Amino acid sequence: MSESAERDQRHRERMQRKKQVVDEKIAQAPDERGVLLVLTGNGKGKSSSGFGMAARALGHGLRVGIVQFIKGARSTGEETFFRRFPDEVRYHVMGAGFTWETQDRQDDIAKAEAAWAVAVELMRDPQVALVLLDELNIALKYGYLQLDQVIADIQARPAHQHVVVTGRGAPPALVEAADTVTDMGMTKHAFKAGIKAQKGVEF
Amino acid sequence: MSESAERDQRHRERMQRKKQVVDEKIAQAPDERGVLLVLTGNGKGKSSSGFGMAARALGHGLRVGIVQFIKGARSTGEETFFRRFPDEVRYHVMGAGFTWETQDRQDDIAKAEAAWAVAVELMRDPQVALVLLDELNIALKYGYLQLDQVIADIQARPAHQHVVVTGRGAPPALVEAADTVTDMGMTKHAFKAGIKAQKGVEF
Repeated sequence: MSESAERDQRHRERMQRKKQVVDEKIAQAPDERGVLLVLTGNGKGKSSSGFGMAARALGHGLRVGIVQFIKGARSTGEETFFRRFPDEVRYHVMGAGFTWETQDRQDDIAKAEAAWAVAVELMRDPQVALVLLDELNIALKYGYLQLDQVIADIQARPAHQHVVVTGRGAPPALVEAADTVTDMGMTKHAFKAGIKAQKGVEF
Repeated sequence: MSESAERDQRHRERMQRKKQVVDEKIAQAPDERGVLLVLTGNGKGKSSSGFGMAARALGHGLRVGIVQFIKGARSTGEETFFRRFPDEVRYHVMGAGFTWETQDRQDDIAKAEAAWAVAVELMRDPQVALVLLDELNIALKYGYLQLDQVIADIQARPAHQHVVVTGRGAPPALVEAADTVTDMGMTKHAFKAGIKAQKGVEF
């Protein structure tokens, strides 16, 4: 048998083992309920990932709710884009910018609470398959919302509804409550290479 | 001054310092060229993040190219969704499934090369603002494409074009060539809690 043929054979065997492992994992997970995903860490891609999941859900013909915490004052292509689908997407942006751009704590709290009321409404609607709570972790980090109440409201959602929470510094209790948590670590960032945040990538 | 007023004052000062740091970072990054982003690691959200960046770019009125490596045989809501915008998005899916579902190395190589030819075409088109190379790292990991050529082709793109590469196991040379790299670590995964991959979230 030639070296290349042997390599192909080894590859085939390795892939068959992998497929078996993946198939078993899926077979072992029969529970059909919605999941709570938390995307945290200091790296890029947390919010983008949440919006990508929203796009995927729309591709499956599902309805989506999006609440943006903190980022209200930022130009975001996501908002412009997802507002194209008013029948499928309910989009709410909290009426404040990054906290370090407002510097008014009481005002941030009031706006965070108003945004949370919209989130709760979405999490009470069984027609909504996925709710994205973008940068919620930041609002929690600054104590703008009560963590216990937030977790209770998330856990009271319809059984098949998915909730995706993004933002660095996810509180341990939320991580504990989550089904899936991804910690996005920054290995390298364009800022460090002296490249300006680009429209369409950074925001 | 009341305790609450003091807390608000401390908060205001901390936020002012943060804003200063962020503003300086942005001011120090004047270079307006496109960036190469690599989203890797074992956690969930790599592909979703790339698709979210594509959505953001579309929101900014930019044109996008998407090439899906490896995932061709998978039901993906992203494909269904982004194919809604044929004028703004060029979408190509490599004609093969996960490698462990095909188990034919030569066939995978031929299909990876055909998909790369489409990627190169997109990276030669100055009208395309962002090119998403989804799961390219997997094709590289299995040696389906030549790493040196892949990096050279990416580096030969138009100056303002962004390229986003996803997939676990990004090769060091690609990480070296990247402007931004996010390593997505899996802290917790729903499979472990015995919850089946959900339409609209897992795929």
